[in-house]
Amino acid sequence: MKYGIVLFPSKEIQDAVNSYRKRYDTNYALIAPHVTIKSAFFATDEEIKPIVQELHKIAEDTQPIKLNIQKVSSFSPVNKVIYLKIEPTKQLLDLHSKLHSGILDEKPEYSFVPHITVGQNLSEDEHSDVLGSLKMRNFEHEETVDRFHLLYQLENGTWTVYDTFLLGKECN
Amino acid sequence: MKYGIVLFPSKEIQDAVNSYRKRYDTNYALIAPHVTIKSAFFATDEEIKPIVQELHKIAEDTQPIKLNIQKVSSFSPVNKVIYLKIEPTKQLLDLHSKLHSGILDEKPEYSFVPHITVGQNLSEDEHSDVLGSLKMRNFEHEETVDRFHLLYQLENGTWTVYDTFLLGKECN
Repeated sequence: MKYGIVLFPSKEIQDAVNSYRKRYDTNYALIAPHVTIKSAFFATDEEIKPIVQELHKIAEDTQPIKLNIQKVSSFSPVNKVIYLKIEPTKQLLDLHSKLHSGILDEKPEYSFVPHITVGQNLSEDEHSDVLGSLKMRNFEHEETVDRFHLLYQLENGTWTVYDTFLLGKECN
Repeated sequence: MKYGIVLFPSKEIQDAVNSYRKRYDTNYALIAPHVTIKSAFFATDEEIKPIVQELHKIAEDTQPIKLNIQKVSSFSPVNKVIYLKIEPTKQLLDLHSKLHSGILDEKPEYSFVPHITVGQNLSEDEHSDVLGSLKMRNFEHEETVDRFHLLYQLENGTWTVYDTFLLGKECN
Protein backbone atom coordinates (compact mmCIF):
# COMPACT_ATOMS: atom_id res chain seq x y z
CA MET A 1 0.00 0.00 0.00
CA LYS A 2 1.15 3.55 -0.67
CA TYR A 3 1.49 5.72 2.42
CA GLY A 4 2.41 9.33 3.15
CA ILE A 5 2.76 11.53 6.23
CA VAL A 6 1.30 15.03 6.45
CA LEU A 7 0.39 17.87 8.76
CA PHE A 8 -3.04 19.39 8.25
CA PRO A 9 -3.19 23.14 8.94
CA SER A 10 -6.26 24.58 10.70
CA LYS A 11 -9.68 24.56 9.04
CA GLU A 12 -9.33 28.33 8.57
CA ILE A 13 -6.22 27.87 6.41
CA GLN A 14 -7.63 24.81 4.66
CA ASP A 15 -10.76 26.72 3.64
CA ALA A 16 -8.74 29.71 2.44
CA VAL A 17 -6.35 27.53 0.41
CA ASN A 18 -9.18 25.43 -1.04
CA SER A 19 -10.82 28.53 -2.53
CA TYR A 20 -7.77 28.70 -4.84
CA ARG A 21 -7.08 24.97 -5.13
CA LYS A 22 -10.57 24.45 -6.47
CA ARG A 23 -9.56 26.34 -9.60
CA TYR A 24 -5.81 25.79 -9.74
CA ASP A 25 -4.87 22.46 -8.16
CA THR A 26 -5.56 19.25 -10.10
CA ASN A 27 -5.20 17.33 -6.81
CA TYR A 28 -7.99 19.34 -5.16
CA ALA A 29 -10.36 16.37 -4.86
CA LEU A 30 -7.70 13.87 -3.76
CA ILE A 31 -6.52 15.32 -0.44
CA ALA A 32 -7.25 18.22 1.90
CA PRO A 33 -4.73 21.11 2.09
CA HIS A 34 -1.64 19.75 3.85
CA VAL A 35 2.09 20.00 4.48
CA THR A 36 3.83 16.83 3.28
CA ILE A 37 6.44 15.70 5.79
CA LYS A 38 7.16 12.34 4.19
CA SER A 39 6.15 11.84 0.59
CA ALA A 40 4.61 8.66 -0.81
CA PHE A 41 6.30 5.40 0.22
CA PHE A 42 5.28 1.78 -0.12
CA ALA A 43 4.81 -0.67 2.75
CA THR A 44 3.08 -4.03 3.09
CA ASP A 45 0.54 -4.70 5.87
CA GLU A 46 3.37 -6.37 7.78
CA GLU A 47 5.92 -3.64 7.17
CA ILE A 48 3.62 -0.85 8.31
CA LYS A 49 3.28 -2.22 11.87
CA PRO A 50 6.83 -1.43 13.07
CA ILE A 51 6.64 1.85 11.17
CA VAL A 52 3.52 2.84 13.15
CA GLN A 53 5.34 1.93 16.38
CA GLU A 54 8.26 4.10 15.31
CA LEU A 55 5.90 6.98 14.45
CA HIS A 56 4.42 6.78 17.95
CA LYS A 57 7.91 7.11 19.42
CA ILE A 58 8.77 10.02 17.14
CA ALA A 59 5.48 11.80 18.00
CA GLU A 60 6.13 11.31 21.70
CA ASP A 61 9.57 12.90 21.35
CA THR A 62 8.34 15.86 19.29
CA GLN A 63 6.69 18.97 20.69
CA PRO A 64 3.76 20.69 18.92
CA ILE A 65 5.09 22.56 15.91
CA LYS A 66 4.64 26.18 14.86
CA LEU A 67 3.56 26.61 11.26
CA ASN A 68 4.62 30.03 10.12
CA ILE A 69 3.15 30.76 6.69
CA GLN A 70 5.32 33.40 5.07
CA LYS A 71 4.26 34.13 1.50
CA VAL A 72 3.20 32.73 -1.85
CA SER A 73 5.98 31.21 -3.93
CA SER A 74 6.57 28.77 -6.79
CA PHE A 75 8.85 25.82 -7.56
CA SER A 76 9.08 27.11 -11.15
CA PRO A 77 11.03 26.45 -13.35
CA VAL A 78 11.60 22.95 -11.82
CA ASN A 79 7.89 22.40 -11.20
CA LYS A 80 5.03 24.75 -11.97
CA VAL A 81 3.70 24.41 -8.43
CA ILE A 82 2.37 27.47 -6.59
CA TYR A 83 2.48 27.15 -2.82
CA LEU A 84 2.36 28.90 0.53
CA LYS A 85 5.89 28.88 1.87
CA ILE A 86 6.24 27.75 5.46
CA GLU A 87 9.22 28.82 7.49
CA PRO A 88 11.66 25.87 7.65
CA THR A 89 12.06 26.03 11.41
CA LYS A 90 14.38 23.70 13.30
CA GLN A 91 11.29 21.94 14.70
CA LEU A 92 9.98 21.14 11.20
CA LEU A 93 13.37 20.16 9.82
CA ASP A 94 13.96 17.90 12.84
CA LEU A 95 10.62 16.15 12.36
CA HIS A 96 11.34 15.69 8.66
CA SER A 97 14.74 14.28 9.50
CA LYS A 98 13.32 11.82 12.07
CA LEU A 99 10.80 10.65 9.48
CA HIS A 100 13.67 9.81 7.13
CA SER A 101 15.90 7.95 9.60
CA GLY A 102 16.09 4.43 11.01
CA ILE A 103 13.46 2.12 9.52
CA LEU A 104 11.95 5.18 7.84
CA ASP A 105 15.22 5.84 6.03
CA GLU A 106 14.63 6.71 2.42
CA LYS A 107 16.32 9.48 0.57
CA PRO A 108 13.71 12.18 -0.10
CA GLU A 109 13.16 12.93 -3.79
CA TYR A 110 13.53 16.65 -3.22
CA SER A 111 15.19 18.74 -0.54
CA PHE A 112 12.62 19.64 2.12
CA VAL A 113 10.85 22.92 1.43
CA PRO A 114 7.85 22.96 3.78
CA HIS A 115 4.81 24.22 1.88
CA ILE A 116 1.08 24.01 1.24
CA THR A 117 0.31 23.54 -2.45
CA VAL A 118 -2.16 26.04 -3.88
CA GLY A 119 -1.90 25.29 -7.61
CA GLN A 120 -0.23 22.83 -9.98
CA ASN A 121 -0.30 21.55 -13.54
CA LEU A 122 -1.10 25.05 -14.77
CA SER A 123 -0.11 26.29 -18.21
CA GLU A 124 2.89 28.63 -18.36
CA ASP A 125 0.64 31.68 -18.79
CA GLU A 126 -1.85 30.64 -16.14
CA HIS A 127 1.00 29.93 -13.72
CA SER A 128 2.39 33.47 -14.17
CA ASP A 129 -1.04 35.08 -13.91
CA VAL A 130 -2.10 33.21 -10.78
CA LEU A 131 1.26 33.65 -9.08
CA GLY A 132 1.27 37.37 -9.88
CA SER A 133 -2.21 37.87 -8.54
CA LEU A 134 -1.64 35.82 -5.38
CA LYS A 135 1.60 37.68 -4.64
CA MET A 136 -0.45 40.81 -4.13
CA ARG A 137 -2.25 39.20 -1.19
CA ASN A 138 -0.93 38.81 2.31
CA PHE A 139 -0.87 35.20 3.47
CA GLU A 140 1.20 35.68 6.64
CA HIS A 141 -0.19 33.52 9.40
CA GLU A 142 1.10 31.58 12.37
CA GLU A 143 -0.49 28.62 14.07
CA THR A 144 0.51 25.51 15.99
CA VAL A 145 -0.16 21.93 14.90
CA ASP A 146 -0.18 19.23 17.57
CA ARG A 147 -0.43 16.10 15.42
CA PHE A 148 0.64 14.44 12.19
CA HIS A 149 -1.25 11.86 10.14
CA LEU A 150 -0.29 8.68 8.33
CA LEU A 151 -2.36 8.41 5.16
CA TYR A 152 -2.80 5.72 2.52
CA GLN A 153 -3.86 6.13 -1.07
CA LEU A 154 -6.88 4.44 -2.62
CA GLU A 155 -6.92 3.23 -6.23
CA ASN A 156 -8.83 6.35 -7.29
CA GLY A 157 -5.94 8.53 -6.06
CA THR A 158 -7.62 9.89 -2.91
CA TRP A 159 -5.80 9.79 0.42
CA THR A 160 -7.45 8.48 3.60
CA VAL A 161 -6.09 8.83 7.11
CA TYR A 162 -4.91 5.57 8.62
CA ASP A 163 -3.57 6.89 11.91
CA THR A 164 -3.09 10.10 13.86
CA PHE A 165 -0.09 10.83 16.09
CA LEU A 166 -0.31 13.46 18.79
CA LEU A 167 2.90 15.39 19.35
CA GLY A 168 4.48 15.41 22.78
CA LYS A 169 1.97 13.00 24.32
CA GLU A 170 3.33 9.98 26.14
CA CYS A 171 0.38 7.89 24.99
CA ASN A 172 -1.20 8.50 21.60
CA MET B 1 -17.17 23.22 13.44
CA LYS B 2 -19.11 20.29 12.06
CA TYR B 3 -17.83 16.89 13.17
CA GLY B 4 -18.73 13.27 12.49
CA ILE B 5 -17.47 9.85 13.55
CA VAL B 6 -16.88 7.00 11.11
CA LEU B 7 -15.27 3.63 10.62
CA PHE B 8 -13.26 3.18 7.44
CA PRO B 9 -13.41 -0.34 5.99
CA SER B 10 -10.24 -1.86 4.48
CA LYS B 11 -8.68 -0.42 1.33
CA GLU B 12 -9.93 -3.51 -0.55
CA ILE B 13 -13.55 -2.66 0.28
CA GLN B 14 -13.02 1.07 -0.22
CA ASP B 15 -11.63 0.48 -3.72
CA ALA B 16 -14.48 -1.89 -4.63
CA VAL B 17 -17.15 0.51 -3.36
CA ASN B 18 -15.52 3.52 -5.03
CA SER B 19 -15.78 1.87 -8.43
CA TYR B 20 -19.57 2.26 -8.04
CA ARG B 21 -19.61 5.48 -6.01
CA LYS B 22 -17.69 7.21 -8.79
CA ARG B 23 -20.78 6.87 -10.97
CA TYR B 24 -23.61 6.72 -8.45
CA ASP B 25 -22.70 8.66 -5.32
CA THR B 26 -22.82 12.45 -5.43
CA ASN B 27 -20.67 12.51 -2.25
CA TYR B 28 -17.90 10.49 -3.93
CA ALA B 29 -15.38 13.34 -3.83
CA LEU B 30 -16.23 14.49 -0.30
CA ILE B 31 -15.32 11.46 1.79
CA ALA B 32 -13.83 7.97 1.42
CA PRO B 33 -16.16 4.93 1.75
CA HIS B 34 -17.15 4.69 5.41
CA VAL B 35 -19.62 3.51 8.03
CA THR B 36 -21.11 6.49 9.88
CA ILE B 37 -21.31 5.79 13.62
CA LYS B 38 -22.24 9.31 14.65
CA SER B 39 -23.63 11.64 12.03
CA ALA B 40 -22.77 15.32 11.72
CA PHE B 41 -22.80 17.32 14.96
CA PHE B 42 -21.57 20.79 15.82
CA ALA B 43 -18.97 21.63 18.46
CA THR B 44 -16.83 24.67 19.18
CA ASP B 45 -13.05 24.40 19.64
CA GLU B 46 -13.67 24.41 23.38
CA GLU B 47 -16.50 21.87 23.30
CA ILE B 48 -14.57 19.36 21.24
CA LYS B 49 -11.82 18.91 23.88
CA PRO B 50 -13.89 17.00 26.48
CA ILE B 51 -15.55 15.12 23.62
CA VAL B 52 -12.13 13.90 22.43
CA GLN B 53 -11.32 12.81 25.99
CA GLU B 54 -14.59 10.92 26.13
CA LEU B 55 -13.89 9.28 22.76
CA HIS B 56 -10.53 8.06 24.09
CA LYS B 57 -12.31 6.44 27.03
CA ILE B 58 -14.93 4.85 24.78
CA ALA B 59 -12.24 3.51 22.40
CA GLU B 60 -10.29 2.09 25.33
CA ASP B 61 -13.42 0.23 26.51
CA THR B 62 -14.32 -1.12 23.08
CA GLN B 63 -12.76 -4.15 21.43
CA PRO B 64 -11.97 -4.25 17.68
CA ILE B 65 -15.21 -4.68 15.76
CA LYS B 66 -16.19 -7.22 13.11
CA LEU B 67 -17.70 -5.67 10.01
CA ASN B 68 -19.86 -8.28 8.34
CA ILE B 69 -21.04 -7.01 4.96
CA GLN B 70 -24.18 -8.89 4.05
CA LYS B 71 -25.75 -7.65 0.84
CA VAL B 72 -26.78 -4.65 -1.23
CA SER B 73 -29.90 -2.86 -0.07
CA SER B 74 -31.69 0.50 -0.32
CA PHE B 75 -33.36 2.99 2.03
CA SER B 76 -36.03 3.53 -0.65
CA PRO B 77 -38.75 4.77 -0.48
CA VAL B 78 -37.58 6.93 2.49
CA ASN B 79 -34.28 7.82 0.82
CA LYS B 80 -33.03 6.69 -2.57
CA VAL B 81 -29.74 5.56 -1.05
CA ILE B 82 -28.15 2.29 -2.19
CA TYR B 83 -25.81 0.74 0.35
CA LEU B 84 -23.94 -2.32 1.53
CA LYS B 85 -25.77 -3.58 4.57
CA ILE B 86 -23.58 -4.37 7.56
CA GLU B 87 -24.77 -6.81 10.18
CA PRO B 88 -25.99 -4.79 13.19
CA THR B 89 -23.95 -6.78 15.71
CA LYS B 90 -24.11 -6.10 19.42
CA GLN B 91 -20.56 -4.67 19.17
CA LEU B 92 -21.61 -2.10 16.58
CA LEU B 93 -24.86 -1.22 18.32
CA ASP B 94 -23.00 -0.81 21.62
CA LEU B 95 -20.44 1.53 20.06
CA HIS B 96 -23.23 3.54 18.44
CA SER B 97 -25.01 3.73 21.77
CA LYS B 98 -21.87 4.88 23.64
CA LEU B 99 -21.37 7.59 21.00
CA HIS B 100 -24.88 8.90 21.75
CA SER B 101 -24.68 8.93 25.56
CA GLY B 102 -23.28 11.26 28.22
CA ILE B 103 -21.79 14.43 26.74
CA LEU B 104 -22.27 12.86 23.30
CA ASP B 105 -26.00 12.57 23.91
CA GLU B 106 -27.96 13.66 20.90
CA LYS B 107 -30.92 11.85 19.50
CA PRO B 108 -29.87 10.29 16.18
CA GLU B 109 -31.89 11.51 13.19
CA TYR B 110 -32.52 7.95 12.01
CA SER B 111 -32.48 4.57 13.71
CA PHE B 112 -29.02 3.02 13.32
CA VAL B 113 -28.71 0.84 10.23
CA PRO B 114 -24.98 0.25 9.79
CA HIS B 115 -24.09 0.61 6.11
CA ILE B 116 -21.62 1.78 3.49
CA THR B 117 -23.26 4.07 0.94
CA VAL B 118 -22.73 3.06 -2.68
CA GLY B 119 -25.13 5.43 -4.47
CA GLN B 120 -27.42 8.35 -3.72
CA ASN B 121 -29.37 11.17 -5.37
CA LEU B 122 -30.20 8.87 -8.29
CA SER B 123 -33.35 9.25 -10.36
CA GLU B 124 -36.14 6.76 -9.69
CA ASP B 125 -35.27 4.75 -12.82
CA GLU B 126 -31.53 4.86 -12.24
CA HIS B 127 -32.04 3.79 -8.63
CA SER B 128 -34.02 0.71 -9.70
CA ASP B 129 -31.56 -0.18 -12.47
CA VAL B 130 -28.44 0.16 -10.31
CA LEU B 131 -30.00 -1.65 -7.36
CA GLY B 132 -31.20 -4.49 -9.60
CA SER B 133 -27.82 -4.90 -11.21
CA LEU B 134 -25.88 -4.74 -7.92
CA LYS B 135 -28.22 -7.28 -6.31
CA MET B 136 -26.91 -9.86 -8.76
CA ARG B 137 -23.42 -9.54 -7.29
CA ASN B 138 -22.16 -11.10 -4.12
CA PHE B 139 -20.82 -8.55 -1.65
CA GLU B 140 -20.50 -10.84 1.38
CA HIS B 141 -17.32 -10.05 3.24
CA GLU B 142 -16.09 -10.01 6.80
CA GLU B 143 -13.26 -8.00 8.27
CA THR B 144 -12.22 -6.42 11.55
CA VAL B 145 -11.76 -2.69 12.15
CA ASP B 146 -9.57 -1.63 15.06
CA ARG B 147 -10.17 2.13 15.06
CA PHE B 148 -12.66 4.90 14.51
CA HIS B 149 -12.05 8.42 13.30
CA LEU B 150 -13.33 11.85 14.29
CA LEU B 151 -13.69 13.98 11.16
CA TYR B 152 -14.52 17.62 10.52
CA GLN B 153 -16.03 19.18 7.46
CA LEU B 154 -14.40 21.91 5.41
CA GLU B 155 -16.40 24.67 3.72
CA ASN B 156 -16.20 22.83 0.39
CA GLY B 157 -18.01 19.87 1.92
CA THR B 158 -15.03 17.50 2.17
CA TRP B 159 -14.31 15.67 5.42
CA THR B 160 -10.83 15.59 6.98
CA VAL B 161 -9.72 13.36 9.82
CA TYR B 162 -9.08 15.25 13.05
CA ASP B 163 -8.28 12.31 15.30
CA THR B 164 -8.00 8.52 15.29
CA PHE B 165 -9.01 6.30 18.20
CA LEU B 166 -7.63 2.77 18.48
CA LEU B 167 -10.08 0.26 19.93
CA GLY B 168 -9.12 -1.65 23.04
CA LYS B 169 -5.83 0.14 23.54
CA GLU B 170 -5.15 1.60 26.96
CA CYS B 171 -3.29 4.52 25.42
CA ASN B 172 -4.34 5.89 22.08
